[in-house]
Amino acid sequence: MSERVVIALDAMGGDRAPDMVVAGAALARERMPHVQFLMCGDEDSLRPLLAKQPALAAVTTIRHTKELIGSNDKPSTAIKSGRNSSMRLAIDAVFEGEASCVVSAGNTGALMAIAKYVLKTLPGIDRPAIATFFPTLRGECCMLDLGANVQCDANNLVQFAVMGEVFARTVLGFEQPTIGLLNIGVEDLKGNEEVREAAAILRDSDLPIAFKGFVEGDDIGAGTVDVVVTDGFTGNVALKTAEGTINFYTKMLKQAFASSWISRLGYLLSRGAINNLRNKMDPRRYNGAMLLGLNGIVVKSHGGTDAVGFANAIGVAADMVVHGFQDKIRDDFERLKGMDEPDRSAAVV
Amino acid sequence: MSERVVIALDAMGGDRAPDMVVAGAALARERMPHVQFLMCGDEDSLRPLLAKQPALAAVTTIRHTKELIGSNDKPSTAIKSGRNSSMRLAIDAVFEGEASCVVSAGNTGALMAIAKYVLKTLPGIDRPAIATFFPTLRGECCMLDLGANVQCDANNLVQFAVMGEVFARTVLGFEQPTIGLLNIGVEDLKGNEEVREAAAILRDSDLPIAFKGFVEGDDIGAGTVDVVVTDGFTGNVALKTAEGTINFYTKMLKQAFASSWISRLGYLLSRGAINNLRNKMDPRRYNGAMLLGLNGIVVKSHGGTDAVGFANAIGVAADMVVHGFQDKIRDDFERLKGMDEPDRSAAVV
Repeated sequence: MSERVVIALDAMGGDRAPDMVVAGAALARERMPHVQFLMCGDEDSLRPLLAKQPALAAVTTIRHTKELIGSNDKPSTAIKSGRNSSMRLAIDAVFEGEASCVVSAGNTGALMAIAKYVLKTLPGIDRPAIATFFPTLRGECCMLDLGANVQCDANNLVQFAVMGEVFARTVLGFEQPTIGLLNIGVEDLKGNEEVREAAAILRDSDLPIAFKGFVEGDDIGAGTVDVVVTDGFTGNVALKTAEGTINFYTKMLKQAFASSWISRLGYLLSRGAINNLRNKMDPRRYNGAMLLGLNGIVVKSHGGTDAVGFANAIGVAADMVVHGFQDKIRDDFERLKGMDEPDRSAAVV
Repeated sequence: MSERVVIALDAMGGDRAPDMVVAGAALARERMPHVQFLMCGDEDSLRPLLAKQPALAAVTTIRHTKELIGSNDKPSTAIKSGRNSSMRLAIDAVFEGEASCVVSAGNTGALMAIAKYVLKTLPGIDRPAIATFFPTLRGECCMLDLGANVQCDANNLVQFAVMGEVFARTVLGFEQPTIGLLNIGVEDLKGNEEVREAAAILRDSDLPIAFKGFVEGDDIGAGTVDVVVTDGFTGNVALKTAEGTINFYTKMLKQAFASSWISRLGYLLSRGAINNLRNKMDPRRYNGAMLLGLNGIVVKSHGGTDAVGFANAIGVAADMVVHGFQDKIRDDFERLKGMDEPDRSAAVV
């Protein structure tokens, strides 16, 4: 039995939109024949693109608007003046229940602001977080927050831990995902007050999560834990540092292979293996950052991605729908709420 | 003309001390025939090691102590109870003017605490910072703070920028090093209050430094700026994330080469080029973190390093002495102080 999944797309968001969005949707449809699309954007641009993709056109509805959110628009402006933008219409469709999720490659700050404004956060969650997953020596890990919350208190971090755990369990398929708090050392005394307090809450709570304590930056790539929890400032820097380091290494490797005819020959022979590795590390594979903690599934694609990357972001959104991510996270926060209350009253006494 | 440089060594600090320390000093002496060593540590352990290195023994004085700082000792304990430790004696030697600099592979927190307690910070500097340098696509960059200051205000960040600039100019040899503040976006509104305020100060100041505004995590490996300035929490995470990513990539590459006989053959042919690359990325090349902002040159070696890495840390310390780092940083903060004062009075009016 396959569920009917309607995916709302911000057809005008991203550097190469709307072409990249339509091409990505076409790829996604090939992989997931049961999805349908609600493309929000300029009909005049979308019609000719869809005309070339009849199989996609057959499962796509266009919601026309000429308006869009610019990549430099402030979040507050996006909320106020973007009521008829492609991004807003796509999010509204999730709110109205017309779509199960929304994918946008547009302005991240605006997407988070509009999604929070329209969909609201789930009960028990103060602030949504941005999460993504990427390759490690042990497989894949999930990290959050990646930039939605520049400053976080201990409770925010605890909530991120629970959200990340649900994501890793339901979407990445870990049976009992392990959780680590990103810090500058693993000893209890290390770090700032927020991480120390969050660690204490996670350690002492009866939450059914496998909290492993503090982890450090090098634990991300090592895959020491399945979910890495941090504030949005640190998480954003860590993610981009990892991306930058992979980019650096790849270019250095290319230079090394090109340095002599014998190493060029060596490259030709190992090309298959190196291409496999390159595919594994391909950032497009890991495209799709989840805005967790909202009353609705919202996935942000990298703005500069291509059709392959955008199709992967659509795949992430569809996975979250199919695996019932929203129900599970709601259940977990209900349980968390139930646990919190006696604790708090005890503290007051 | 070569200056006589006496280097104080904490002979008991580091996972493989004192063997690694003596072997590292021997390597350093071969490269820098004019250095002399003051080794602080257990004479009974050091004598037999030095007996095997007569050239090194000829330029080495031992300052005996049986005491040492443990890798888990708290900084406060290290100050109070470590008065006769190998680390403390080595730092005392710099304070007394017997040595020009000190190198230790011991407990970082204790080293910073003792160094600050004994040597004090330079005039105009509120807090010392830990800096290091590492490879980028454009050569090398310097980053600070890497963990000495978990929370930093705007003034701390501005001081780090000046210290990093002096280091990049005098030791790394950049004529006019460019400075960037690490943030989660390059737009003025991005990030927390501290980085925004620091950026405003750096932009508006008449400091003779090339401030390039905000940079992001991926700019580190790209070499967008020569000096990356950040707080100790973010810097520590970024540094370790980069190290972890290189480790991850290297292992994945190894697996890729081993995946078939043809790729193994390819590896054999490109081995020379790949070894060159590996040497370039070798963390031992970049061993040696500088504790900047103190009345004396203090270099921290990685605790797990070997003789090659330790010799490089000694090299960094010697370079700082030879290039007159301390005088230059003192001059720059004198100038900074001169500039600050009219500004402040203007603000009060």
